[in-house]
Amino acid sequence: VEDRFALMADQRHSGLAKPQGSLGRLETLAAQLATIARVCPPPAVGNPGLIIAAGDHGVHAQGVSPWPQEITTLMVESFCAGRASANAIASACGVRVMVLDAGIAKPPADHPVIRTAGIMNGTRDLHVEPAMTVDECTAAILAGAALADRMIDTGADLLALGDMGIANTTPSAALIAAFTGQSADLVTGRGTGIDDRTLDLKKTVVADALARHGEDRDPLRTLASLGGLEHAALAGVALAAAARRVPVLLDGVNTVAAALAAVALCPDVLGYLIAGHRSVEPGASAGLAHLGLEPILDLELRLGEGTGALLAVPIVRSAAAVLREVAGLDELGA
Amino acid sequence: VEDRFALMADQRHSGLAKPQGSLGRLETLAAQLATIARVCPPPAVGNPGLIIAAGDHGVHAQGVSPWPQEITTLMVESFCAGRASANAIASACGVRVMVLDAGIAKPPADHPVIRTAGIMNGTRDLHVEPAMTVDECTAAILAGAALADRMIDTGADLLALGDMGIANTTPSAALIAAFTGQSADLVTGRGTGIDDRTLDLKKTVVADALARHGEDRDPLRTLASLGGLEHAALAGVALAAAARRVPVLLDGVNTVAAALAAVALCPDVLGYLIAGHRSVEPGASAGLAHLGLEPILDLELRLGEGTGALLAVPIVRSAAAVLREVAGLDELGA
Repeated sequence: VEDRFALMADQRHSGLAKPQGSLGRLETLAAQLATIARVCPPPAVGNPGLIIAAGDHGVHAQGVSPWPQEITTLMVESFCAGRASANAIASACGVRVMVLDAGIAKPPADHPVIRTAGIMNGTRDLHVEPAMTVDECTAAILAGAALADRMIDTGADLLALGDMGIANTTPSAALIAAFTGQSADLVTGRGTGIDDRTLDLKKTVVADALARHGEDRDPLRTLASLGGLEHAALAGVALAAAARRVPVLLDGVNTVAAALAAVALCPDVLGYLIAGHRSVEPGASAGLAHLGLEPILDLELRLGEGTGALLAVPIVRSAAAVLREVAGLDELGA
Repeated sequence: VEDRFALMADQRHSGLAKPQGSLGRLETLAAQLATIARVCPPPAVGNPGLIIAAGDHGVHAQGVSPWPQEITTLMVESFCAGRASANAIASACGVRVMVLDAGIAKPPADHPVIRTAGIMNGTRDLHVEPAMTVDECTAAILAGAALADRMIDTGADLLALGDMGIANTTPSAALIAAFTGQSADLVTGRGTGIDDRTLDLKKTVVADALARHGEDRDPLRTLASLGGLEHAALAGVALAAAARRVPVLLDGVNTVAAALAAVALCPDVLGYLIAGHRSVEPGASAGLAHLGLEPILDLELRLGEGTGALLAVPIVRSAAAVLREVAGLDELGA
């Protein structure tokens, strides 16, 4: 059954001065925005924000990534300096950037765009034990939710999710396997671009972690056992944004893993999610398919940081603008 | 052989603080921008413009479109009033809009954003005779080139192509068939959404026009015989932009037809073209394949007006911004 605001959006599109259905996916997006806001036309996307949640991972000790853990800290400092890919793209697409230190091993210097969860400096090794306790995981969810709330309080009308965390595609693969039921082999990918030997190791680590965790599919315990602090924080962002009727734009595999957790915790979150792009990482496609989301962009990205979500922001903004601003057929020549 | 500015772009991408190749298509785009500008990093895309060329078509008399020809005039007046889909999206994506009346049957009222070619009020019926003389066609090309030059003089650093013209997917199909060698059957589509009977008629009209025109593949005579004034004008925009080393962003089927003509007239134009999106219209895909262009977006659009090109502008802008603004790996933690 279609939502009545989506129906209103479809009717409004049909009356605009353009051939019916001629804006394709843009029309579906606008209808979703109307459903989310419970008003048609939907509000303008005038103040979109990106939250990059960053964390480190005990499983890094298993050798699943060629990068040293310090890169997480250095990249967060680069976000603060406005010198990372996410900053360049955010500024080209008109998006405000905030960073959440959800649990970095070596905490970055203080900066006005960083908030700190203050829970722990990275997770435990999910290969050998639960990455977080349920209390730690809950605290990370709440830290993400709190930052989302603050950004919405100061005007954010769309929240894009981004991530930073060396080795974090390993917990993502584990979460995606757990929540979708797909095998470790299928959902584990090369992340930043690891070699064949490291990929084999990573698949084994993910499969072992899933075996260690067992059959428990309780969302919170699964997220705590297999996830990262940034995944939990991003799930919290999605939960808070949905509660405030603010659309959530997903990026790559790490944000998809967080979205699966958020939807498992609260199925109603699904209606607030928009898939920004299709990451090259196989787990991203598995997760999006499980959620039934069709991504806006497919540009062969695999960077994270929210870059793919950012690139989709002007398209979401345009979808709302068409429904708000375009003349009706009956107004032509009037 | 790869261009040396593209190689410089690839090298620069490799040194940035991100995994190698992780920005996928964005990196290819940035390399093309460097090649176009003959400098790396390429200039920022700070002042993109859209030129919507509008015209009417003698072949409308054959019944190939359900819309009255007056819609061309009314939609151009809607562009001027800022009330069309192109305006809403242009404003969401930060693009300036100009309109060229390349030859509208019932000329719209004067307005600061319109330029008028002043050649003729619509083409002749391409089903029974050449749509334009070569002189008329040349004049339309020059009118497009002149507007492109003026926009570049006043700062435009990227030009998106857009079109408006009731029945213009019929000349587009004829041009695409002629320039790609594909059959009328394959490249003729539903345009704004015609029914099966009208589609059959349209295919016959296109096939008849191709038979009338014969084997002559001289680019100018082919464009004059089978095209529209807006196609000629948009070919002129592409030629002038390429001559000024300004990237040209294609929209749907009508702009692809114009691009085929421009590349046939001057093969070097190809390097300046960026395909904004894949239109639903089959001729668009046939034309893009012939040109070897892979579109940035695939959002099932079939509106024209430059809408699909506009939606790709922030992605092109982002590609340039990454190469210009992102820190090198060697700068991390410095």
